[in-house]
Amino acid sequence: MQTYSGPISSLIEEFSKLPGVGKKTAQRLAFHVINMNMIDVEKLSEALINAKKQIKYCSVCCNITDSSKCNICSNPNRTEDTICVVEDPRDVAAMEKTKEFMGKYHVLHGVISPMEGVGPEMIKIKELLQRLNNETVKEIILATNPTIEGEATAMYISRLIKPLGIKVTRIAHGLPVGGDLEYADEVTISKALEGRREI
Amino acid sequence: MQTYSGPISSLIEEFSKLPGVGKKTAQRLAFHVINMNMIDVEKLSEALINAKKQIKYCSVCCNITDSSKCNICSNPNRTEDTICVVEDPRDVAAMEKTKEFMGKYHVLHGVISPMEGVGPEMIKIKELLQRLNNETVKEIILATNPTIEGEATAMYISRLIKPLGIKVTRIAHGLPVGGDLEYADEVTISKALEGRREI
Repeated sequence: MQTYSGPISSLIEEFSKLPGVGKKTAQRLAFHVINMNMIDVEKLSEALINAKKQIKYCSVCCNITDSSKCNICSNPNRTEDTICVVEDPRDVAAMEKTKEFMGKYHVLHGVISPMEGVGPEMIKIKELLQRLNNETVKEIILATNPTIEGEATAMYISRLIKPLGIKVTRIAHGLPVGGDLEYADEVTISKALEGRREI
Repeated sequence: MQTYSGPISSLIEEFSKLPGVGKKTAQRLAFHVINMNMIDVEKLSEALINAKKQIKYCSVCCNITDSSKCNICSNPNRTEDTICVVEDPRDVAAMEKTKEFMGKYHVLHGVISPMEGVGPEMIKIKELLQRLNNETVKEIILATNPTIEGEATAMYISRLIKPLGIKVTRIAHGLPVGGDLEYADEVTISKALEGRREI
């Protein structure tokens, strides 16, 4: 059913291809675009192309960047001793927010998931191993998500790296701060118990 | 805090200017764009510009269109006797879905709202009055939304048009089909009572 004229139908269609954008939201966004001023529309349109064109992976850590080496890898104040391995560039941003970690990162761009046909060779594990040959790394922190795939990926990587004589750690699992024992799932509670420490 | 590199930060910023798109959603969309293929990104980028550039108001009914007269106004099978007055182009689409109405439309592009500083001269009321001079209209159906502003706008328009000897009607208010009396608000119920008909 062609209710709207060509250009707006096309825009609605393109919007609805985005994740979490259904027909109704796409419609709302498209109508908003028509009421925006031309300069803002051009800015959004260009930002899309620029992001897609200019963003590439850092040659060291595989994080997204617009230069050949990302800000974190080229920062001389950050120690090369520790590499925190994460699934996704967004996880780097989340870790950076804590301002606690002063080492470097390695972004896997996914997790091993036989269910979705993602094997170890499809994520950036070999790039990590290459780094370990060149750099003097003392500790690898595995910060993949506490999901089945994240755990399996962490396990897989730790088995590859431990023989190299490098310390491998996994971030702690437990109750989130501000969380409620009553509403926590049993797996989280048993992980919290397992990871208990003397105070 | 500049967590992401330039091009992606700009894209996140532009996305977050859209309605209903917060920081997190903008981030998710921007990362999705990076993983999209170039052709799809170009299509979205162009659709934005095209929609903004090519969409204008129909010279007759003020609905959005890419030609000077919209599909509905230029359709000879639709009667000119009845004009359905709506707030928004989306309302035209909603009415069209029913496939019940075979007349023409008039899109006000807003409602009179003293609270938001929208006076009668700022919506397409004078364009409606002009149409009434040129066309042989027998009935005006006021289909503005059942809100305070929608009601006030309907009332305002009906007072302007009635003296011209044209029948003015208002769409019915009442319980939505499939609705539940228990959960309906009192105003809707009293409107439903008021509009009761013999069966």
